[in-house]
Amino acid sequence: MKAVVICVGTELVTGLVKDRNARFLTERLLEGGVSTRLVLFVPDDRNEIRRTLEFVLSDPAITLVILTGGLGPTEDDITREAISETIGRPLAFDRASWTEIEAFYHSLRRAGPPPNNRKQAMFPEGARILPNGRGTAPGFALKHNHQTIFVIPGVPAEVEYFWETIRCSITPEELLYFRSRILRFCGIGESSLEERIAPHLADLPGSLKPAFLPNFGEVWFYLYGDAPDRSARGQAEEILATLENQLPRHCFSLYGETTEEAVGTLLSRLNYRVAVAESCTGGMLSDRLTAVSGSSCYFDRGYVAYSNLAKREDLAVPEELLITQGAVSREVAIALAESVRRKAGVAFGLGLTGIAGPHGGTSQKPVGLVYVACAGPQATTVERFQFPGERQIVKRLATQYALSMLFSALLESRAGRGGTD
Amino acid sequence: MKAVVICVGTELVTGLVKDRNARFLTERLLEGGVSTRLVLFVPDDRNEIRRTLEFVLSDPAITLVILTGGLGPTEDDITREAISETIGRPLAFDRASWTEIEAFYHSLRRAGPPPNNRKQAMFPEGARILPNGRGTAPGFALKHNHQTIFVIPGVPAEVEYFWETIRCSITPEELLYFRSRILRFCGIGESSLEERIAPHLADLPGSLKPAFLPNFGEVWFYLYGDAPDRSARGQAEEILATLENQLPRHCFSLYGETTEEAVGTLLSRLNYRVAVAESCTGGMLSDRLTAVSGSSCYFDRGYVAYSNLAKREDLAVPEELLITQGAVSREVAIALAESVRRKAGVAFGLGLTGIAGPHGGTSQKPVGLVYVACAGPQATTVERFQFPGERQIVKRLATQYALSMLFSALLESRAGRGGTD
Repeated sequence: MKAVVICVGTELVTGLVKDRNARFLTERLLEGGVSTRLVLFVPDDRNEIRRTLEFVLSDPAITLVILTGGLGPTEDDITREAISETIGRPLAFDRASWTEIEAFYHSLRRAGPPPNNRKQAMFPEGARILPNGRGTAPGFALKHNHQTIFVIPGVPAEVEYFWETIRCSITPEELLYFRSRILRFCGIGESSLEERIAPHLADLPGSLKPAFLPNFGEVWFYLYGDAPDRSARGQAEEILATLENQLPRHCFSLYGETTEEAVGTLLSRLNYRVAVAESCTGGMLSDRLTAVSGSSCYFDRGYVAYSNLAKREDLAVPEELLITQGAVSREVAIALAESVRRKAGVAFGLGLTGIAGPHGGTSQKPVGLVYVACAGPQATTVERFQFPGERQIVKRLATQYALSMLFSALLESRAGRGGTD
Repeated sequence: MKAVVICVGTELVTGLVKDRNARFLTERLLEGGVSTRLVLFVPDDRNEIRRTLEFVLSDPAITLVILTGGLGPTEDDITREAISETIGRPLAFDRASWTEIEAFYHSLRRAGPPPNNRKQAMFPEGARILPNGRGTAPGFALKHNHQTIFVIPGVPAEVEYFWETIRCSITPEELLYFRSRILRFCGIGESSLEERIAPHLADLPGSLKPAFLPNFGEVWFYLYGDAPDRSARGQAEEILATLENQLPRHCFSLYGETTEEAVGTLLSRLNYRVAVAESCTGGMLSDRLTAVSGSSCYFDRGYVAYSNLAKREDLAVPEELLITQGAVSREVAIALAESVRRKAGVAFGLGLTGIAGPHGGTSQKPVGLVYVACAGPQATTVERFQFPGERQIVKRLATQYALSMLFSALLESRAGRGGTD
């Protein structure tokens, strides 16, 4: 089964909003073994939607098409009309859907739906109507020759909801696409990594291809292919296992986990908890740590000590230190990390202080300067970083390196316990 | 001038990485007055790239095609081969480019380039070679009939670099696309908003179209069109100015600012400061407030009180309240907001508590339940929300509504001062 994802919305072809739906759907399709051949963003334009859909349907290899967006009640929402035209099936009003839309409105204790919502109860002839558990617009599914077309609203929470319906239509024997687990490397460039890895790929089965992907200072490596058999998949795993052992200094993530997930797994296994005192990153480190489901088991608390007063009151940073060394200093980072560790009564404390910019830098303490300290049961380490880029990138890189430092400290701590979990 | 952006990379059609390039390029194209008709993500697959490119070039209305990605040194990078095939121009080795690639390697004080980099010096016949100031792979430009094709590497920093070259090829008389400023509304649904706005659109010039865009608890409204003349653009501004005055209670952002920027501007003007005590959102609210440059003037501190102990120790939430009402309750949200306001000595305190999920919900307190309290100089307000979606979406929506509540409280406070800044 090969799929195409089409996201309708002028906002997507004008850079106005970030895509979430294509990423969500392609990821889920892949997990279900379905290979997405193409993702398209199309404006709310009837002709453009029709041309695109004709192109996509003209490829007989494509059996599943998912279309999101443009099912809203307003005039610029014309996805249903464009589809109806393309496949030559006129729209018809569905009374049952309209009753449900009315019920949805009443359940929110609002007045009934405005009349322009009526178009949300219009569907191409022969469509299977899919109720919407999270919003007003129902989705629908169409069979067109051997191809199945799902049409769903573009609101991310609703896309998640409809995914369950789509997933159920994928039968197990159609699971054809394979991607190996992902090794993430840092401290090595893409071509050097390929040179190191190439000898191990000599016997790679023809159904598998290697992928090297540079990403935010890391390089990711994985193997993928269409319909590799069990033995090819076994060989893929053998190659990855060898690489893990051959390049351990550069490889930090074996299963493609994010850094916060890798850290969370280690914390849980070692039964340690962590707390955070951050200044320049303004809560982003806590936000990343708590992005992981189950993080309440190991994340105790965070302080966003933005003002100097908060640093003194909540984390007992001595006033003298703030005056003599400045808030952005090695010493204050250490004080934040050790104080939050002690105060929360946890094994690990992280302290961050720096200048996120774009203003507030000096020649001695330029924008992008960040100190990160990690206080653990054995020792406190502190590092100085000079990051490039704009405010949110500096914040992001600072949290990234803070997590890496915690990861290293956890690995050492595990080694100290005898290398087992 | 109408453009298409094609991003090559299997990682993009498998949900492995977030797109940055399409968003960057379409945004810049729009600023340059160029309308992007289509964005396509294509895997590193020679046939798929060829099919896609043929489809795109078959539309005579398209005059500019930008292709990013797949120019790396590794075997999976096959964009140049696919293009060469599609337009029937064989690849040829360019010695001058190879010398520059070697020089780039030496400038990093590394050994010379590995031999696999040689393919980065191969170009289709007749291509104009574009030097790369930030990496090894040069880009290139091709004229194909009346269409111009730019082919550039996919590393975001390099895309930014090549954009300057592309921008220079866009001549001023081709600036055809227009988008008005964006009004952002909250507390009103998409169809109700359209009903309120529709009467004002009666005299909308034919060259302009309205767009309603629901986005994370907000609805955005703007006008756009191909080649509207000066008078049409003037009418657009008149309509927007009228809407600003007609719907002031719902309209919080007049120029497309983010909620955190709008809140920050009001806080600065009114000379108020804010502090935050958040549980389920795990630092995201502080992160958003501090995403704004200059936020240190009005953001004092934040507490991420994840554990009950932290809620008691740092924010004096009574143990009895946690036992009788539970941590996720109206009363605890109020206690968090009032306590952090008092403790930080600021005008406004925000308190959030809820269940981000996917686990931890009960029938009485389901996943997505969030209480938000806003404590100000005059009063404390609290609201109960039931958000749909997965963990990071619940966190995002909760922070969005917390910012909206703060915005309303600030507006009231300004009105109380006599309606002036």
